[in-house]
Amino acid sequence: MPTQKVQIIERILDANDNVAKQVEDRLTQAKIFAINIMASPGAGKTSVILKTIQSLVPEYKIAVIEGDTAAVTIDADKVSALGVPAVQINTGGQCHLDAVMMQQGVAALDLSDIDLLIVENVGNLICPASFKIGTHANVVISSIPEGDDKPYKYTNIYRGIEVLLINKVDLLPYIDFRMDYFKQGVEILNPGLATFELSCKTGDGFEDWIEWLKTRITLFKQQ
Amino acid sequence: MPTQKVQIIERILDANDNVAKQVEDRLTQAKIFAINIMASPGAGKTSVILKTIQSLVPEYKIAVIEGDTAAVTIDADKVSALGVPAVQINTGGQCHLDAVMMQQGVAALDLSDIDLLIVENVGNLICPASFKIGTHANVVISSIPEGDDKPYKYTNIYRGIEVLLINKVDLLPYIDFRMDYFKQGVEILNPGLATFELSCKTGDGFEDWIEWLKTRITLFKQQ
Repeated sequence: MPTQKVQIIERILDANDNVAKQVEDRLTQAKIFAINIMASPGAGKTSVILKTIQSLVPEYKIAVIEGDTAAVTIDADKVSALGVPAVQINTGGQCHLDAVMMQQGVAALDLSDIDLLIVENVGNLICPASFKIGTHANVVISSIPEGDDKPYKYTNIYRGIEVLLINKVDLLPYIDFRMDYFKQGVEILNPGLATFELSCKTGDGFEDWIEWLKTRITLFKQQ
Repeated sequence: MPTQKVQIIERILDANDNVAKQVEDRLTQAKIFAINIMASPGAGKTSVILKTIQSLVPEYKIAVIEGDTAAVTIDADKVSALGVPAVQINTGGQCHLDAVMMQQGVAALDLSDIDLLIVENVGNLICPASFKIGTHANVVISSIPEGDDKPYKYTNIYRGIEVLLINKVDLLPYIDFRMDYFKQGVEILNPGLATFELSCKTGDGFEDWIEWLKTRITLFKQQ
């Protein structure tokens, strides 16, 4: 009975959205701007997060929630090494974070002195797009080696996002990647999307992303 | 009630496994060796498939089933352009192929004259690992730009596979990738796994993979 199956899925998403709203309200009350970073495995989520932290501290207070499908603390350890509080959520094999996991992650943080909460979702270009987790902005990181056809194949993830980072532009000389074709695909799904081409390795283009983020944090605090 | 939830998931996987067994029996009867190719988005699944086809035809008759999460025929069109029958399965947003989709894909093929069926699963390093689809061998393609920590973070996908291709070795000079560390991670999960380092772009190492595949097809035909 496919109809019944659909109803069950919708009910689960409703429940998730309700919890996501609670999480968002809690973060908003605490004046914490929260971003949800989604990407394929290996697009450079952790590298972008580490470099973003280094660009913002000590001016801004930051915390990180790390979503991992396995019980490893590789990424959380790297964040902690920068002196930033990090909570690791092990999804137990699940392919995305959900709002209940986020609620538990947020509960583990001291919310009294944070400007920015960065959430690293599980490395996956499909499932995270379907689950709100209570953040204020969705970010996708694409990377040059993934190829220029990804917006045509993994459409949903590009739709509900506020900013797109195109990482690893230092590899452009060695890879056939048509930037125009890639951006056209994104434009169809999300017209006018804020997009930054950058390289975590060389630092090229990184300051524009940091400027965008600082502006958003400032606007959020003024609300 | 988490216990009930687990029971429902197990029942769904049972049903999937039953259909997967039917698909496998049908392919085995038709003497078609079938492989399930899994990887992150952009690891080079389609490129490996195209180059594998070019290395094997006309000696071997090949068919391809393309799993895509969106209604695009980019990959299927590339395969068809080589004169090989290709069936595209649009999963409708789902993050993996399952056995029922495969059953429909196989039904759309003329099975009377195929030596090798190549299935390109949805680009995802998590969900495809949980769903048997009735193939005889699971293949994972990793790629250098994804980073050397992936076996430590996405453990399940490396467990039930017969061969691992490490693609894009031509990018090794430009990326910090510790091959030993990567392989150690895989060895813990899948000791003695057949592993080939190759580059679709330069062709380096590709002949070893083709040899492995030819041997497996021959052994399969002799069963």
